[in-house]
Amino acid sequence: MVGETSIWIDGAPASALELPDRAFAYGDGLFETLLLRGSRLLLQELHLDRLRVGLQRLRFPDCMDSVCDYLAQAAAAEPDTDLFRVLRLTVSRGGGPRGYAPPADCRPRVIITVSPPVDAPSGLPAPARLGETSVRWGRQPLLAGLKHLNRLEQVLAAADCDPHSCDEVLMLDQSGMPLSVSAGNLFLVAGKRLLTPSLDEAGIAGTRRRLILERLAADCGLQAAETRLELSQLLAANELFYCNSVIGLRPVGTFRDRCWVEHPVTRRLHTAYLECLRE
Amino acid sequence: MVGETSIWIDGAPASALELPDRAFAYGDGLFETLLLRGSRLLLQELHLDRLRVGLQRLRFPDCMDSVCDYLAQAAAAEPDTDLFRVLRLTVSRGGGPRGYAPPADCRPRVIITVSPPVDAPSGLPAPARLGETSVRWGRQPLLAGLKHLNRLEQVLAAADCDPHSCDEVLMLDQSGMPLSVSAGNLFLVAGKRLLTPSLDEAGIAGTRRRLILERLAADCGLQAAETRLELSQLLAANELFYCNSVIGLRPVGTFRDRCWVEHPVTRRLHTAYLECLRE
Repeated sequence: MVGETSIWIDGAPASALELPDRAFAYGDGLFETLLLRGSRLLLQELHLDRLRVGLQRLRFPDCMDSVCDYLAQAAAAEPDTDLFRVLRLTVSRGGGPRGYAPPADCRPRVIITVSPPVDAPSGLPAPARLGETSVRWGRQPLLAGLKHLNRLEQVLAAADCDPHSCDEVLMLDQSGMPLSVSAGNLFLVAGKRLLTPSLDEAGIAGTRRRLILERLAADCGLQAAETRLELSQLLAANELFYCNSVIGLRPVGTFRDRCWVEHPVTRRLHTAYLECLRE
Repeated sequence: MVGETSIWIDGAPASALELPDRAFAYGDGLFETLLLRGSRLLLQELHLDRLRVGLQRLRFPDCMDSVCDYLAQAAAAEPDTDLFRVLRLTVSRGGGPRGYAPPADCRPRVIITVSPPVDAPSGLPAPARLGETSVRWGRQPLLAGLKHLNRLEQVLAAADCDPHSCDEVLMLDQSGMPLSVSAGNLFLVAGKRLLTPSLDEAGIAGTRRRLILERLAADCGLQAAETRLELSQLLAANELFYCNSVIGLRPVGTFRDRCWVEHPVTRRLHTAYLECLRE
């Protein structure tokens, strides 16, 4: 299918979600946003690893086998072309009676949405104008790092991003330290060092963030570390960029009164990233 | 209809939710749990007030008129008996393209679920065994007090409540101070004083909590206040109780090594509460 969004629920084509559903009622579930090239899921293992951790932390019954089956089925339904699509995989705890307590016999549901084709990742994305928001991440170590369905903070942060003046917004944590953008992880380049905020108390541990930390940084001769970052370090950085699964790595061109014209390190990392997508 | 759950979406009977939907995708919405006696909504204004505040804080377009219309319609569809039902009203930000940012032209959806009959509130509920959970409320002043759809913390807390040993669990905030139970607000009685945790940084501002603070406490000759409570104050209290819209006020019978046999103040408050329901 070209030009249409397809939706699958537990392996069957669908257009609506049976109610009650705990993802709808309480945000009781997790999701992943994957890139699909033709019928091929890119960097699938990074997504499945995070999902597996999330399912355990949220105490879902083990459902990874059916998740993988449904995912493979949805991917295989796309033609084997070079077109890129965005696939959203959502795992809900399913139906059940009223009340917060997960039912003892809960049966998770797997909802998959495949978008119409999007632009293929190619050259380095245009430098972004990074704005600011007063919406901060809540402090919640128990859920930090997970891509669960409770995303109101990012919804409100993204609502603060006026497209006339900015492309993304910086989100701080409860202590006022930079943590991420509204839809991506944040990195700064300082000499040979690549630094990104640690996510012990808030934020989403992005798949591209992990790829950069565990592989791309070393491929590009950089020392990567998770740390607590100050705003002043952002402004003093050689380069800034953010990343997510859909855009890859996007350099920051402006933030407050700072302007970055060249992005040589981000460019090298992005080239290494594109190679990963081709594997 | 007796014995069945009825579902309404934007005023039409329904059994499934059209996708995409932002309540499902991001928990982007709010809800209220109301008591219905026959076709009459009880304490409706308390729920509508909180919902109105939530819609503003989440920057929804104004949709209170249609919310009220749909609510009245769902209530009027029930027979005018003395049977009690639980009505859940959910307002989702509706459909829209992928991405956290709310669409400029978003059209909220109103989803109403009406349960089969439940027991009518009557005498004081049986004293509860209050257990504990290691799941704490996150710190998020921006969303504190609202009954929004991001409820994973309470889901995980409720999962810690083993029905063999407890009826509810105490939830602490990030600093380890008592904040609520998993599905209700917490009060303690100390002499003529009635104290409940303040909700500036986390928690849900319950409708019954508000009723107690603004009216029932004074009716019963008590001085009510919101404050920061210590665990030691709970253990030293004359009485403890929690409250929500479905159970009303339920006294705590046991917590740790403390046991409360008589609940005279909670009983008086509960009697005053039942009178409110009859108005």
